[in-house]
Amino acid sequence: MKTKAYAALSAQSPLAPYTIDRRAIGLQDVAIDILYCGVCHSDLHTARGEWGGVKFPCVPGHEIVGRVREVGNGVQDHKIGDIVGVGCMVDSCRQCHSCDEGLEQYCESPLGFAGTYNGHLRGGDANTYGGYSAAIVVDRHFVLKVSHRADQLAAVAPLLCAGITTWSPLRHWGVGPGKKVGIVGIGGLGHMGVKLAAALGAHVVALTTSETKRQAALDLGAHEVVISTDPDQMAKCTTQLDFILNTVAAPHSLDAYLTLLKRDGAMVLVGVPPQPHPSPMVFNLIGQRRSLAGSLIGGIAETQEMLDFCAKHDIVSTIEMIKMSEINEAYDRMIKSDVKYRFVIDMASL
Amino acid sequence: MKTKAYAALSAQSPLAPYTIDRRAIGLQDVAIDILYCGVCHSDLHTARGEWGGVKFPCVPGHEIVGRVREVGNGVQDHKIGDIVGVGCMVDSCRQCHSCDEGLEQYCESPLGFAGTYNGHLRGGDANTYGGYSAAIVVDRHFVLKVSHRADQLAAVAPLLCAGITTWSPLRHWGVGPGKKVGIVGIGGLGHMGVKLAAALGAHVVALTTSETKRQAALDLGAHEVVISTDPDQMAKCTTQLDFILNTVAAPHSLDAYLTLLKRDGAMVLVGVPPQPHPSPMVFNLIGQRRSLAGSLIGGIAETQEMLDFCAKHDIVSTIEMIKMSEINEAYDRMIKSDVKYRFVIDMASL
Repeated sequence: MKTKAYAALSAQSPLAPYTIDRRAIGLQDVAIDILYCGVCHSDLHTARGEWGGVKFPCVPGHEIVGRVREVGNGVQDHKIGDIVGVGCMVDSCRQCHSCDEGLEQYCESPLGFAGTYNGHLRGGDANTYGGYSAAIVVDRHFVLKVSHRADQLAAVAPLLCAGITTWSPLRHWGVGPGKKVGIVGIGGLGHMGVKLAAALGAHVVALTTSETKRQAALDLGAHEVVISTDPDQMAKCTTQLDFILNTVAAPHSLDAYLTLLKRDGAMVLVGVPPQPHPSPMVFNLIGQRRSLAGSLIGGIAETQEMLDFCAKHDIVSTIEMIKMSEINEAYDRMIKSDVKYRFVIDMASL
Repeated sequence: MKTKAYAALSAQSPLAPYTIDRRAIGLQDVAIDILYCGVCHSDLHTARGEWGGVKFPCVPGHEIVGRVREVGNGVQDHKIGDIVGVGCMVDSCRQCHSCDEGLEQYCESPLGFAGTYNGHLRGGDANTYGGYSAAIVVDRHFVLKVSHRADQLAAVAPLLCAGITTWSPLRHWGVGPGKKVGIVGIGGLGHMGVKLAAALGAHVVALTTSETKRQAALDLGAHEVVISTDPDQMAKCTTQLDFILNTVAAPHSLDAYLTLLKRDGAMVLVGVPPQPHPSPMVFNLIGQRRSLAGSLIGGIAETQEMLDFCAKHDIVSTIEMIKMSEINEAYDRMIKSDVKYRFVIDMASL
C-alpha cells in the first residue's frame, strides 16, 4: 500500500516528501490512519545519523495517535473507527521473561524489540518506517487504546514516548503520596515528569538551571522549584528527596543531584548523553546507600495504564502544533530547546 | 588510664609505640582488653594522611576483638569476661531516623557517626584512638557479642569491618537462594563477600583479573570463577547475574561488570577509589533498568546479626597473624595485595 510520508534520504539531507510501502494487514494487524505524530529528540538524532546504525531512507516518528481504518481477522480488541496510539515499539520476541512480564522494552532476544522506525521486524521489514506518514500497520499487541476527548488528541501523542518514559520509572520506584520527588530538566520529558508525579500525589520539586522557567514549572504542577545553579538553593535541598527523575541528556555533573537524595534514594536517568556524564563521586553513592539507575521507555501494559490514568486525570502534553513541512525548522528549534514542550505534527498537513 | 598503643605521629612517620589516655568508664561504658585487631586498608590510608582531615597522633584499628574488663553501672548487656567486638563506629546521634532504624552508619546528624579512630565523640574526645592498643573504652551500644570458639577469635576480628561491609549490602539487596551473585575482587572484602554470599545460599560467581586466584576463589566457596580480563568468559556471563558486590577500590571500568547484570540488577560499590572510576555508559544502566549503588559498612544490629550468623555457620576471615611491631611491613605488603586475605595483629605482642 503506497503511503505518503516524510523521510530523510541520508544523514545529510533534510526531511522531504517520500512515498513508502505499508504491508497488507495480516491476521493480527491493525491499519491506522495517523492523525498526529509527536516529535521526539530521538527522531532528530536518528534522521541525522548521529547515533549510527541508521538505515536510510529514514521515516521517524514514534508518538502516534490515529484512527483504526482496518483490522485483521484475528483482532478482537480494536475495531474500525477506534482512536488508538502507537509508541516506540512495534514488535518484540513475546517469549522471553521480560516480554512475559509486559516489559517488552527490555526484550531479551538477540534482536530485542523492534523500534517503530529504524527497527527490524521479525520475519518482516528490515527497516520500519515511523509516524511521519499518513498511515501505519501495526501488530495489535503494540496498539494502545486512547480514551481522551477528541479535542485532546494532538496533545496525547507525546504521551506515547515522553509520557511513558517518565511514567514507567515513577511507577517502578513507587512515586506517590508522601514521597518528595525531584524532576531534573523541564523539557519534553521533564514537563511530563512534573505533571505525572504531581498527579500521582507526590511532592514535586522541579530542578532547572534557569530562573526563567520557575513560573512555567509551577504552572505544570511543581510544588517547589530549585535553581540547580544556585548553591544555596541546592544546599537547602540536601538529603531531602526520595527519588529523582533526571531527564537531561546533555552531559552534566550528577553529583549535585545525588546529594539531594535521602538514604536509599535513587536517581534515574532516562536520557543517553552523546558523551559520558562526568563520573559521579563514589562516596555520594556509598554515603547514603544511594542508587544511580536507568530506565528505558515502558512496556505496553504500563503504557495503557498511563494513557488511562492521563485520560482520567485530564492530563496531556503541552504542545506546539506544526505542519509536516515545518519539521526541519522544528528540529533546529529543538536543538536550541526552543519549544514548550513538544512539537506535534498535524498529519492533515501531509 | 594510660594505655599502650601504636601510633603514627604524622603522615610521614611510620607507626611506632606510643602511650594514649583512655577515659575512665562512664555509666554506659564497657572497658575492653584488646586481644586481636584486624588491619584494614582504611588504617593505612588514614595513618598516611591520604584521605585528608587526619588528626595526629593517629592510632588506627577498627576490627577489634577483646575481653570485657569492666562495665559501667548502667550496662546490663555485657559483663566482665565476655568476648566482644568493636567495629568502625563508637558513637552516633542515636536520635535521627537512620539511628532509630539501626543504621548508625548513615547517621544524619551534622557530625555523623564517630569513627573508632580519627573520629569525634559527642561531648568527648575530638580524636578517637582505635584498636592498635592494649585496651579501649566504648559505649555499650557499639559493643558486639562474639560467640565464636576461642580458637577462632583472631579470625573473627576482620568480620567487624570486612565482614559487615559485605554482609550489609548482600542482605539489603536480598541475596539468598535462587540468586546468582557476582563478587568483584578477591581480597580482604571480596573473600568475605564470597564466603557470606555462599553461606546465604546464593550461587556465587567470583570475578577476578587473575587466573592464579581461580582455585583460591573456589576454596573460599565460589561456585564459578570468571576471569574478568577474558572477553569470552565475560561474554558468557552477560545478563546472568542478579547482583554484583564490587569490592575493588582501584579505579576501573564499571561497564564490563554492569553488562553482566540481568534486568533490574544492581552493582554495589563498597570501595572509594582515590580517583574516580571511568564514567559508566548510561545505556548500560538504561538498557536493562540496572542500578549502580553504594553501601557503607553496616549498622550495629546487622553487625550482631552477621556475627551470630558467622558463629552458627563456622565462618571466619582467612587471615595472616602478625606482631604489632610488623605493622609497617604489613602495610607495605597490603599495597602490593600481598596478603591472604587479612592481617590481624596479635595484641599480646604489643
